[in-house]
Amino acid sequence: MGFNTKNIFKPSNTMARFVKIRKEDIGKAPDDMRFRGEQKMDETLIRLVDYDNDKLVEKVVDKIETILENKKTPTVTWLNIDGLHDTDILQEIGVSFDFDKLVLAGIMDTHSRPKINDFGNCILISIKMLQQDEGSGLITVENLSIVLTDTLLLSFQEKRGDVFEPVRERIRNQKKRIRTGATDYLAFALLDIVVDNYIYLVGVLGEKIEMLEETLLQEPRKSIIDEIYTFKREMNFLRKNITPAKEMILALSKLESEFIKESSDIHFKELLNNINQAVDSSETYREILSDQLNIYHTTISSKLNDVMKFLTIFSVIFIPLTFIAGIYGTNFEVLPELKYEYSYFIMWGVMIVLALSMLWYFKKRNWW
Amino acid sequence: MGFNTKNIFKPSNTMARFVKIRKEDIGKAPDDMRFRGEQKMDETLIRLVDYDNDKLVEKVVDKIETILENKKTPTVTWLNIDGLHDTDILQEIGVSFDFDKLVLAGIMDTHSRPKINDFGNCILISIKMLQQDEGSGLITVENLSIVLTDTLLLSFQEKRGDVFEPVRERIRNQKKRIRTGATDYLAFALLDIVVDNYIYLVGVLGEKIEMLEETLLQEPRKSIIDEIYTFKREMNFLRKNITPAKEMILALSKLESEFIKESSDIHFKELLNNINQAVDSSETYREILSDQLNIYHTTISSKLNDVMKFLTIFSVIFIPLTFIAGIYGTNFEVLPELKYEYSYFIMWGVMIVLALSMLWYFKKRNWW
Amino acid sequence: MGFNTKNIFKPSNTMARFVKIRKEDIGKAPDDMRFRGEQKMDETLIRLVDYDNDKLVEKVVDKIETILENKKTPTVTWLNIDGLHDTDILQEIGVSFDFDKLVLAGIMDTHSRPKINDFGNCILISIKMLQQDEGSGLITVENLSIVLTDTLLLSFQEKRGDVFEPVRERIRNQKKRIRTGATDYLAFALLDIVVDNYIYLVGVLGEKIEMLEETLLQEPRKSIIDEIYTFKREMNFLRKNITPAKEMILALSKLESEFIKESSDIHFKELLNNINQAVDSSETYREILSDQLNIYHTTISSKLNDVMKFLTIFSVIFIPLTFIAGIYGTNFEVLPELKYEYSYFIMWGVMIVLALSMLWYFKKRNWW
Amino acid sequence: MGFNTKNIFKPSNTMARFVKIRKEDIGKAPDDMRFRGEQKMDETLIRLVDYDNDKLVEKVVDKIETILENKKTPTVTWLNIDGLHDTDILQEIGVSFDFDKLVLAGIMDTHSRPKINDFGNCILISIKMLQQDEGSGLITVENLSIVLTDTLLLSFQEKRGDVFEPVRERIRNQKKRIRTGATDYLAFALLDIVVDNYIYLVGVLGEKIEMLEETLLQEPRKSIIDEIYTFKREMNFLRKNITPAKEMILALSKLESEFIKESSDIHFKELLNNINQAVDSSETYREILSDQLNIYHTTISSKLNDVMKFLTIFSVIFIPLTFIAGIYGTNFEVLPELKYEYSYFIMWGVMIVLALSMLWYFKKRNWW
Amino acid sequence: MGFNTKNIFKPSNTMARFVKIRKEDIGKAPDDMRFRGEQKMDETLIRLVDYDNDKLVEKVVDKIETILENKKTPTVTWLNIDGLHDTDILQEIGVSFDFDKLVLAGIMDTHSRPKINDFGNCILISIKMLQQDEGSGLITVENLSIVLTDTLLLSFQEKRGDVFEPVRERIRNQKKRIRTGATDYLAFALLDIVVDNYIYLVGVLGEKIEMLEETLLQEPRKSIIDEIYTFKREMNFLRKNITPAKEMILALSKLESEFIKESSDIHFKELLNNINQAVDSSETYREILSDQLNIYHTTISSKLNDVMKFLTIFSVIFIPLTFIAGIYGTNFEVLPELKYEYSYFIMWGVMIVLALSMLWYFKKRNWW
Repeated sequence: MGFNTKNIFKPSNTMARFVKIRKEDIGKAPDDMRFRGEQKMDETLIRLVDYDNDKLVEKVVDKIETILENKKTPTVTWLNIDGLHDTDILQEIGVSFDFDKLVLAGIMDTHSRPKINDFGNCILISIKMLQQDEGSGLITVENLSIVLTDTLLLSFQEKRGDVFEPVRERIRNQKKRIRTGATDYLAFALLDIVVDNYIYLVGVLGEKIEMLEETLLQEPRKSIIDEIYTFKREMNFLRKNITPAKEMILALSKLESEFIKESSDIHFKELLNNINQAVDSSETYREILSDQLNIYHTTISSKLNDVMKFLTIFSVIFIPLTFIAGIYGTNFEVLPELKYEYSYFIMWGVMIVLALSMLWYFKKRNWW
Repeated sequence: MGFNTKNIFKPSNTMARFVKIRKEDIGKAPDDMRFRGEQKMDETLIRLVDYDNDKLVEKVVDKIETILENKKTPTVTWLNIDGLHDTDILQEIGVSFDFDKLVLAGIMDTHSRPKINDFGNCILISIKMLQQDEGSGLITVENLSIVLTDTLLLSFQEKRGDVFEPVRERIRNQKKRIRTGATDYLAFALLDIVVDNYIYLVGVLGEKIEMLEETLLQEPRKSIIDEIYTFKREMNFLRKNITPAKEMILALSKLESEFIKESSDIHFKELLNNINQAVDSSETYREILSDQLNIYHTTISSKLNDVMKFLTIFSVIFIPLTFIAGIYGTNFEVLPELKYEYSYFIMWGVMIVLALSMLWYFKKRNWW
Repeated sequence: MGFNTKNIFKPSNTMARFVKIRKEDIGKAPDDMRFRGEQKMDETLIRLVDYDNDKLVEKVVDKIETILENKKTPTVTWLNIDGLHDTDILQEIGVSFDFDKLVLAGIMDTHSRPKINDFGNCILISIKMLQQDEGSGLITVENLSIVLTDTLLLSFQEKRGDVFEPVRERIRNQKKRIRTGATDYLAFALLDIVVDNYIYLVGVLGEKIEMLEETLLQEPRKSIIDEIYTFKREMNFLRKNITPAKEMILALSKLESEFIKESSDIHFKELLNNINQAVDSSETYREILSDQLNIYHTTISSKLNDVMKFLTIFSVIFIPLTFIAGIYGTNFEVLPELKYEYSYFIMWGVMIVLALSMLWYFKKRNWW
Repeated sequence: MGFNTKNIFKPSNTMARFVKIRKEDIGKAPDDMRFRGEQKMDETLIRLVDYDNDKLVEKVVDKIETILENKKTPTVTWLNIDGLHDTDILQEIGVSFDFDKLVLAGIMDTHSRPKINDFGNCILISIKMLQQDEGSGLITVENLSIVLTDTLLLSFQEKRGDVFEPVRERIRNQKKRIRTGATDYLAFALLDIVVDNYIYLVGVLGEKIEMLEETLLQEPRKSIIDEIYTFKREMNFLRKNITPAKEMILALSKLESEFIKESSDIHFKELLNNINQAVDSSETYREILSDQLNIYHTTISSKLNDVMKFLTIFSVIFIPLTFIAGIYGTNFEVLPELKYEYSYFIMWGVMIVLALSMLWYFKKRNWW
Repeated sequence: MGFNTKNIFKPSNTMARFVKIRKEDIGKAPDDMRFRGEQKMDETLIRLVDYDNDKLVEKVVDKIETILENKKTPTVTWLNIDGLHDTDILQEIGVSFDFDKLVLAGIMDTHSRPKINDFGNCILISIKMLQQDEGSGLITVENLSIVLTDTLLLSFQEKRGDVFEPVRERIRNQKKRIRTGATDYLAFALLDIVVDNYIYLVGVLGEKIEMLEETLLQEPRKSIIDEIYTFKREMNFLRKNITPAKEMILALSKLESEFIKESSDIHFKELLNNINQAVDSSETYREILSDQLNIYHTTISSKLNDVMKFLTIFSVIFIPLTFIAGIYGTNFEVLPELKYEYSYFIMWGVMIVLALSMLWYFKKRNWW
């Protein structure tokens, strides 16, 4: 994969990373429908898929009225809405299907925690969708809202994307389970893609972490510490998004609602299993990163110690030699050795023997 | 924002930070109504808002009797009392509405943990309100008590504040949900503001922490450690206030009481979601601070190691050179090299070669 | 407060700190009534308070028989027994009121964990009472046992104390709630004092810890580490006593017994709230102490690094200077510089320039 | 055991260590039967064991039809299928026994977390089988799936293995319990072997860790840190496989299904006990490894400190001696000592006394 | 107590410390009765105590038949079997009392985790018995199994011991509670001794840890680190045995069985309380040991820093002095100071002043 390590995990907007509230938003009504996210596309795109076991209609919707025809039919009607900035369209949808204003406010609150709300005439599911942009390699964070009734499923994305294409493909290909299933199975299929993306992204990041390991053992360059902390922060970011999603899916698998059939239990249990796998993996990588940090510090400090020990031993060997030279540099009138002819050479001999003995001693005591 | 980093998180009184009991207060009766907080305003201000879907009365109340008129009406009566030092007024209110003495004692015990108590004829909710004073930028901690009956909501603040102004605004603007809602919806609206303020303050502090990160990587000045510990302490302070509030809201969302309608469940669940978001955020920043501390220590120690290594290598290079000079400073009568004409220059040559070899060796082994 | 820091937290006997079993006590019967604590007073003192809303009798009891008169009356009879060493008296009480032998054994087992036992005809509550002796400033640990029936409350203390004086005061002062309340309210009142003392002592210790902080930032003297570890141990000691007490109070608030009226729920819930506050506070101080330790280590190591860096730089500056002097101390016959008239002064000049350049360089690279 | 430490814990394929999803697998249908593992054997081997208390048939099955004869009989029919790559065979089995497509997809999803799914007409159990290859000493990770009906048990292994041979042996040897037991007892017997292998492998790794301890205390060679981290990672790997298996077994022991008799409760409880033992052991070794790391660091740093202290003291002793020699190497015209006949020898005497005093002083202060 | 610190906590066999499975034991039947422990005594000893409130029989049993007489009587029959290696005897007992084979296998599996199993016609309780051998001071680990029916209690120990002597004593001494109690009370009495031994041993080890503290503060000798880690490991060993025992006792206190009367609840609750105390204590000592390690490291590093600082300062003072001497050791022809009569003495003066100034400066800046 040809993208840069440093910036692959840049969320689409920094606000999304750690949700912050603007001072002017404190005290807003819970059904206040102002869109406060970042507008991510120009026009709202509404795609309709209407199917049952026998027939399949797929089209792009221009007017909301055309949807209403499908409102009453027993077929599964899946409306995928890309783009949340156009409050009018959302409001029209809300009115058409008789949704509580809170449902719409919930859809537009793109900074909310993953959650599930049962409004009686519909269920609102909200989850963070993490994705890697194919072009730039950037990871984008997007809020996905799913509204579920008995024959209707609305999915709201912040921007156009083909992430649900495999599901459409399965519907087109007459895959029996999805064509005979109800809206709850469709909801499962969509959430399953979101969770698969979690596992995939943890894996992509994990692979980088595993590759780091080898570099770490071979040559711990200084920049590696930055990379470890970057990966740590990114893995934390993934975990912070996945963990509340897990809670939500757990709540979903326990939800008692007429819109979720008992036969879907096994699917939601599987979904829970999958997200648990993502959590497990991210946990494992967190521990690996923590070990890597420790290994780095141990390696660095061990290397430093070796250098300092070498330098110190080197100095220490010269200290008595310099002292001896100092002795014979004194100007005492009576200093017998100075007179002797071979003194100078004897001094050299003594020095060499002394240096070698010290080296041998340090070596023997394994200091070197 | 033009306020000083150091003192933004100074609670209004130090007693409030870590609750302490005075020796003389040990053993006081639970319904003892002495006010033990710090008097934060001169006069008690009572503001009344009385509304239903059709009509709205808003006034400042002078005499308690005027309130009693609203006692029996089916409209929602919201009394906001600023200032808790005047025991007489509180007692009068208590008697008028037939509250248990424990309710009043609970309101005056401004150091208590966030809690919820069902007294049968009313519910007492107590929570810490964290706010940033607009003028000084100081964060103030204040205890908010809410007393709830079917048609009456009393909110008690320690000092005058316009924190609930957005709610009044929504009431005035005929926002349908709040005008048709009962006291439980009003309580939700007030608590929602408190929780929004938590998220806001975590965000304000968080922004400072994120800014620290950049400084940390560029130039880890010494004072940064103080700032990290200051932010750590402040974030802990926020967490210590938010976490028990979360418990309280959880208890509130599970409370079975005639004063809390089933239709409000969805709002209290949303509230729980919001406070969970505040807890998550503060948890994230705590981990970031912990990482920052580690990065600081790594950076500092790495820098120190570089300096010491440089200095040691510098010294080590001179040691054999000084030794050589020492050799030729000896006064042996027979020391052949001294006689040779070019000895001095050869010595210099040897020294330079030696120094360069050492530099090359140290460089090669990557010690430098 | 004029007492010494070091020895304020000396429990009355070291056995009480970490409960140990004597080899000879292994296998004793659970209703074995040998007193194994430390005798803390000479004579057992029995004080009786008998009251209802209308009348109040308060006296010191000499003979157990006099108590039996109060056994049947519907008034609340509170017997406070100070001193547990006199097995005969306790046995007499046990027989008089028809208590199980286990009740008495439980009262005498002063090393037990806080607990609550329902014996059918009575409830036994056991909790650690932490107190600060007013004279010596020493903290004493004492086991408090409360035995509760419908009209009778017996409290057993290891030694004479006026810790429950405020309750007696409230009874005397006709405080309505306590005079109309039953034994369960009295039990709450006594436990409330115990818990208030927890909060008070955590506060006293906490204040010392907060004062440490300032010293720490100004001048981290060596002894501070001892103080931190002392406070850490003491705070742990408090926590180890408070945490099981919290469990006990939680169990008490959930206990279904005819002796504990539903109307007291609110009081026991408040008690739980209070002890949670004590636990929270001690937890906070534990984190503060942990931070203080880290700050101490950072400060100390930073100071050491500064010293070592200064000394190393100082040495490094002289190394090339000494080398130069060494060069001109050699005795080569041909050493042109020696002959030149101003050589000596030039050498000085060179040396000074060299030293200053090095200083400038080190300063520039911010090493100093 | 004659195998190499480094590579004993190499899983059969790296994909199995940390499950990763391929981009193209995102959005696949849950009943999609593509096999995505690594093909570990050429041909699928189906072994049939059919038994009740009286008779026993054991054969290798070529055609699926021959199995169908056993479908209706009340005897326990155990089909062990080695090899999952042949989708046709699996599909045939699925159709023959009327299994949901999800069952087959679950069997082929060899990267899934240990789990248990009740499909109504059968139960699917999935667990990781860890084994040590007898030849190479390598640890292999394999997914084991068990499908359970009232008279039928199918076990699916990724590759041929004789791990269940002891169970076959017990069946052949007329061990009463297994011959009279139903499919649930057989399932227990198989899972018991899997769990026993966990305990065995934790023990094998644990033995190596314990042996490390001795080396650590005697001579902490540098490579030991690599070994500790290798063992740490391997123990983590074991834990990450065992912990979800524990959850699964807990769920199994609580499962209410017609296929699991009440009489088997005691066995599944025992199974839970065993896997708890494995978890406990791995936990213990994790703590031991953590202690070993600390001991290593302490030992290494203590050794370094000793060396540095020795070298420093050595240098320090020569410093004043060299200074004295320097003094008498000055060329002052008036330097009285130089003239005195015994000066040189006195200097030596002074130097020796000085060096010895320093040695004595350092020794006395325990610095050496 | 006159035993050696190092080896007091040597379990009777190393296998018992961390349970390991032998490769050949994988896949054994759960009712396989091979004894896999270490034979700890030659002959199996069976002691019978048969009692009710009125009569008491105590004898050593040779033939199993003699026991069977007591099988039907309503008196409490306590059989204490020391030694588990003789499979025949155990089998005979099993058959006589009609126990499931799993009961016997459970008794012989001396490496199992503490557990409780209800077999319908009996309850099997299994717990680790930790004891200190009076002679050698060694700690022995032994598995205790208790089998309970309505009138029968069998206790199985691995080797002969008089640990239950106090219970026999209480039975002999006509202690009312035990003589009127049923088998469940007897079981409680035996388990109580086991738990008392836990508390006792934690206390014995704890005392050594507390004594360590003083040595630590006075003179941290190097070997202390070994002792701390030894104590750490031993305390962990105790904890690892006590914690699962606590789980077992919790399960026991919640067990609904005809053999455990409601009247015993209070005793099992007390037992739980006691083992909680053991767990608390061990937890406390673990924290103390952790603090001790930190104190040791702080002390050692602080001492090292002092030494290094002293030595560095010592060197630093001589560096400029040696430089000055070097200056006047140069052989420049023109070096005015050399000519001046008092130069030498002035040099000394300057040197002394310089050295003192440096000392004063270092002292002033508190470096020394």
